[in-house]
Amino acid sequence: MSGNKFGNLFQLTSFGESHGPAIGGVIEGCPSGIVIDIEAIQRDLDRRKPGQSAIVTQRKEADEVQFFSGIFDRKTTGVPIGFAIFNTNQKSRDYDHIKDQYRPSHADKVYDDKYGVRDYRGGGRSSARETASRVVAGAIAKQFLSDIKFTAYVSAVGEIELDKPYQSFDFNTIEQNPVRCPDPQKAIEMEEYIKQIRKEGDTVGGIISCVIQNVPVGLGEPVFNKLHAELGKAMLSINAVKGFEYGSGFAGAKDRGSNHNDLYNTDGTTQTNQSGGIQGGISNGMDIYFKVAFKPVATIMQSQTTINNKGESVEMQGKGRHDPCVVPRAVPIVEAMAALVLADLTLLNRAVKK
Amino acid sequence: MSGNKFGNLFQLTSFGESHGPAIGGVIEGCPSGIVIDIEAIQRDLDRRKPGQSAIVTQRKEADEVQFFSGIFDRKTTGVPIGFAIFNTNQKSRDYDHIKDQYRPSHADKVYDDKYGVRDYRGGGRSSARETASRVVAGAIAKQFLSDIKFTAYVSAVGEIELDKPYQSFDFNTIEQNPVRCPDPQKAIEMEEYIKQIRKEGDTVGGIISCVIQNVPVGLGEPVFNKLHAELGKAMLSINAVKGFEYGSGFAGAKDRGSNHNDLYNTDGTTQTNQSGGIQGGISNGMDIYFKVAFKPVATIMQSQTTINNKGESVEMQGKGRHDPCVVPRAVPIVEAMAALVLADLTLLNRAVKK
Amino acid sequence: MSGNKFGNLFQLTSFGESHGPAIGGVIEGCPSGIVIDIEAIQRDLDRRKPGQSAIVTQRKEADEVQFFSGIFDRKTTGVPIGFAIFNTNQKSRDYDHIKDQYRPSHADKVYDDKYGVRDYRGGGRSSARETASRVVAGAIAKQFLSDIKFTAYVSAVGEIELDKPYQSFDFNTIEQNPVRCPDPQKAIEMEEYIKQIRKEGDTVGGIISCVIQNVPVGLGEPVFNKLHAELGKAMLSINAVKGFEYGSGFAGAKDRGSNHNDLYNTDGTTQTNQSGGIQGGISNGMDIYFKVAFKPVATIMQSQTTINNKGESVEMQGKGRHDPCVVPRAVPIVEAMAALVLADLTLLNRAVKK
Amino acid sequence: MSGNKFGNLFQLTSFGESHGPAIGGVIEGCPSGIVIDIEAIQRDLDRRKPGQSAIVTQRKEADEVQFFSGIFDRKTTGVPIGFAIFNTNQKSRDYDHIKDQYRPSHADKVYDDKYGVRDYRGGGRSSARETASRVVAGAIAKQFLSDIKFTAYVSAVGEIELDKPYQSFDFNTIEQNPVRCPDPQKAIEMEEYIKQIRKEGDTVGGIISCVIQNVPVGLGEPVFNKLHAELGKAMLSINAVKGFEYGSGFAGAKDRGSNHNDLYNTDGTTQTNQSGGIQGGISNGMDIYFKVAFKPVATIMQSQTTINNKGESVEMQGKGRHDPCVVPRAVPIVEAMAALVLADLTLLNRAVKK
Repeated sequence: MSGNKFGNLFQLTSFGESHGPAIGGVIEGCPSGIVIDIEAIQRDLDRRKPGQSAIVTQRKEADEVQFFSGIFDRKTTGVPIGFAIFNTNQKSRDYDHIKDQYRPSHADKVYDDKYGVRDYRGGGRSSARETASRVVAGAIAKQFLSDIKFTAYVSAVGEIELDKPYQSFDFNTIEQNPVRCPDPQKAIEMEEYIKQIRKEGDTVGGIISCVIQNVPVGLGEPVFNKLHAELGKAMLSINAVKGFEYGSGFAGAKDRGSNHNDLYNTDGTTQTNQSGGIQGGISNGMDIYFKVAFKPVATIMQSQTTINNKGESVEMQGKGRHDPCVVPRAVPIVEAMAALVLADLTLLNRAVKK
Repeated sequence: MSGNKFGNLFQLTSFGESHGPAIGGVIEGCPSGIVIDIEAIQRDLDRRKPGQSAIVTQRKEADEVQFFSGIFDRKTTGVPIGFAIFNTNQKSRDYDHIKDQYRPSHADKVYDDKYGVRDYRGGGRSSARETASRVVAGAIAKQFLSDIKFTAYVSAVGEIELDKPYQSFDFNTIEQNPVRCPDPQKAIEMEEYIKQIRKEGDTVGGIISCVIQNVPVGLGEPVFNKLHAELGKAMLSINAVKGFEYGSGFAGAKDRGSNHNDLYNTDGTTQTNQSGGIQGGISNGMDIYFKVAFKPVATIMQSQTTINNKGESVEMQGKGRHDPCVVPRAVPIVEAMAALVLADLTLLNRAVKK
Repeated sequence: MSGNKFGNLFQLTSFGESHGPAIGGVIEGCPSGIVIDIEAIQRDLDRRKPGQSAIVTQRKEADEVQFFSGIFDRKTTGVPIGFAIFNTNQKSRDYDHIKDQYRPSHADKVYDDKYGVRDYRGGGRSSARETASRVVAGAIAKQFLSDIKFTAYVSAVGEIELDKPYQSFDFNTIEQNPVRCPDPQKAIEMEEYIKQIRKEGDTVGGIISCVIQNVPVGLGEPVFNKLHAELGKAMLSINAVKGFEYGSGFAGAKDRGSNHNDLYNTDGTTQTNQSGGIQGGISNGMDIYFKVAFKPVATIMQSQTTINNKGESVEMQGKGRHDPCVVPRAVPIVEAMAALVLADLTLLNRAVKK
Repeated sequence: MSGNKFGNLFQLTSFGESHGPAIGGVIEGCPSGIVIDIEAIQRDLDRRKPGQSAIVTQRKEADEVQFFSGIFDRKTTGVPIGFAIFNTNQKSRDYDHIKDQYRPSHADKVYDDKYGVRDYRGGGRSSARETASRVVAGAIAKQFLSDIKFTAYVSAVGEIELDKPYQSFDFNTIEQNPVRCPDPQKAIEMEEYIKQIRKEGDTVGGIISCVIQNVPVGLGEPVFNKLHAELGKAMLSINAVKGFEYGSGFAGAKDRGSNHNDLYNTDGTTQTNQSGGIQGGISNGMDIYFKVAFKPVATIMQSQTTINNKGESVEMQGKGRHDPCVVPRAVPIVEAMAALVLADLTLLNRAVKK
């Protein structure tokens, strides 16, 4: 399997399956001399971890990260940062019943086809548990980029959507509700809806919005590695993501140039920001903002007809402890991936001028 | 500038500015023994080239590709394929008036900020002219993947959208109208609308849909380089793209798992295809389909207030020969980038099993 | 710090400092379905570990590897193999006296200059302890390449050199003496010499030869990544290495073409093998053989004048537990790096033909 | 074929065969704002080109480079620099007689085995003609690194070797004789020897030494991408190279630590320089020096017995215009590859500190 690395100069290499001894990774390229706040890293992990509220999976995992290298006297030394999160609450038996079965809309069958072997315990490598490693690396990227502010939040759960632009919200309220939605009224609606969905043994999709503020001008490599192309890939690499748009997004496709163009102020800022802070693939200093669409979790607590590895039709009953809606826990993952992108482009940008 | 390369094993390295001597590239990793149909490459270039119809820019460029290496006796030899398209119709003077000015929603200002220098002639490296190199490489990728069928078409121009799924259309009609839309009635509407927009000196956005058929099972690297993440990055790296969604896309975020899951047939196909042919980042053999949103072209034939490189407010009049709507010419680019992604993942997939 | 990765498709990412909690790595790209013999991995680690005989450093490290992922039911699953070796016998205090001093011919000063910070405990990241991670990955590469035989041995210690070609030796004798020399008489001489050197508080250099047998034809990428260029880089990346030659090597530079050319037998083998099994950067199926020169260990048990980080002249007394001669323990490292090179080129070679 | 790229941030992608339309490449990552002296690039090409003196091949190639992009108003703009050298003096018929034959110690047979196809004209991609692209890129790297001085020279032809250290020579004399040897007396001996060898229809090997002066402290990535490992790979990737050593090299393997260590002066320089300017893989500011061994050219003007592609024994008579000794023309190639290594490590070094 290739593609366990993300980034060019600031790079995460990720390893681990949901039910193996540990997941973890290696962060290569983090500059020396960054003061590391371990507690802040753990806080981001806690925002992602299972069991944190009534609307997420009730699995209990401590998700404590152990660092093996690269930090000395609480500062980065410039060498690779190896780390692991040991898996402590594996109930592999929960998966015995699907050992020979392929769950619908899961990766079970394609893994078997591709690799000729499958670690059926909890999805193995295809489990979203892998994203905990991304949160660790992203938290360190944030500390490297301490001037830049990354804020993600839930902007839709099923049909319930926020109808105001991000500037309308007080971002301080995001962590005050289990949905991670900055509109307190909508947050309550969403929370109730998720509970209802769970009762029905069903799941629902949602949207996460992200805003990156105080970005320096000049980040992004203008051809294949445009800033928004890197952000798009980063987001689409998160489990269950089906779509990505930035700035005016799909709505921009309906617009006219005379309305869509962002006219300049004399200080170099723009009067509007349909560009979403990115022009020609390069940050222009305005806020970067984008949306990420997540499908409903495939594991439902209802009976489904599926096939086994002999191609026979079988009845499958959903078991285990799963999320009815993935977006509340995915908020820190979106932020982490965004931070990894910007950290990498920041280092690449040091090489461009004489 | 980094990021002029696309792909890992099947890789395009691209060079060239719109008004330099030539654009071109190097295709590395194309296997030996592929019979190359030069005419088919040129046909794809012709679908992208300016001046091909009344609704695109009236610049005239022959866009003839010259190959320098890698093809011997009409077959690939396995070594790098170097090529160039010489720029023959450069009217650099068309750009003298913007030498010191920054066009709104263009890359002019960020280039100046990032590199401390700017090739102002036609956008330089940030010009979409670069995508001709992608079309060449993509055409070769298609010939390598001769069993797979790549079909892109225009599914929206401004507010005019196709309202049927791709299965409803006869793809043979796509190239029968200048818009490249498989719905003949909508195609006429779109064409009229683009002509109207052009008369107003304005531009409009649009959407391209793409369908990839007959894909083998197993393509895609399941963590960061998921098949749809690579497709997303590929599409977002095309000039003017603002969004990407595949399968159920943003609509999937509103759905429930019980409805969204694709149940299996006993032959391993699925009854529905919300997954868009990709599960866990790996192709499952069903059709891959996705949408790409393009913003309206930033260069309009109207007067706009902008700033120059001294930060002074100046009035700018649109000049030159530009597209009123970019999507008709972008159709072969979308196909090319899709083919590059699948060619690369096909080669990577050879390494996964003992 | 970049460059902690080795390989393209079969890739090791390494982390860890000599006196941090652990060293380790991630092996990406190992194909699925390889039966893993953990004991064989540990045997290679034991050949490298300190304290194994009277002529190596007397530090005691268990050097037991723990695997975190990628192996299920004793087989590789194709996903990344994460592993760590916990550091159990760190005597960081041994290094307190050099905290502010720069040891001659060590990396101390350049690290301080480059990173602005230095982990002075045992050399930190520049310690050869890092090579234990390479031995783990190399042992897995050997198991992937089970048909290929990798044999390294000590061919010189100081002025004592083997004077016969590798074909003269019984490779089974290599592990029968602590020097790892296949000439039993010379082995005794070398052992005595190393003991004498140690008594004098001094160190001595040496040479390791390596032979790779049963290599398939076709490994190696012919331009920048020639098989011998990759082997050369691999060997030169091992601590203390000063030179690399393959086939006829430096002696070949004195030869004439009429004598040096390897004439073919009609079965495609060659009558001689000055080419060292590699032509045009590609393996030709003959034995690959090469030599690697190691300098004497820089840490000596004698007083040396050096400088501290204020640029003041200071007297330094060698302390700690160090090797008088590095080559006996470096034999498995040379084999491991050779196996990593061939594993990677084996996977790359799967992509070359239609 | 992979491995047509060299470098990470300052990167050359090379294309082209000896008898195709053109060779060339793309230089990616060269910073913006470098004033480019085209004549200096051509001078380096002229030092490599055939027909320049009586002791090299008498083929006549103009070897004029054409730039396609990346240079505007004689300065780099930061975007990729595409270039080509058109092949003007191809006598493909010279190779008709070997179309089905495998030349001894050439890449002919392994190419056929690996790719299933072979461009037999002049060696195709395996021809040393490809190195002209490296000289172009290296010349630009030198201009980027204008403070660093790269000097290569011939230090041995066959048994005739220089017996003094590089400090004894006046480097200005190197280009005053066709051998490119800084010892005028030895240069005459070498020249006579090469002429004699040519008369006999034979070829001879040789050694090139290289000195890099005024190198800043801190270049090199300390684990796999050590400065000397990158230099070693760079040199071993040049056609016909069999060995590489730096600093004390193979002689260092015979030395003792007490003699070999480079003691510090209080200004941070060292009293001796056995380290060859590199400690722990990082430049320490002292002169970098190394040696590269070249085998005798395989094409000789004598009859040799070989096999054809049916495995039949055939008699082959050397034809064409070939070098009796490759080292005089390889001097600028060694410098070019050294400059590419240092340019890349210079850019990587910008990313290491906070």
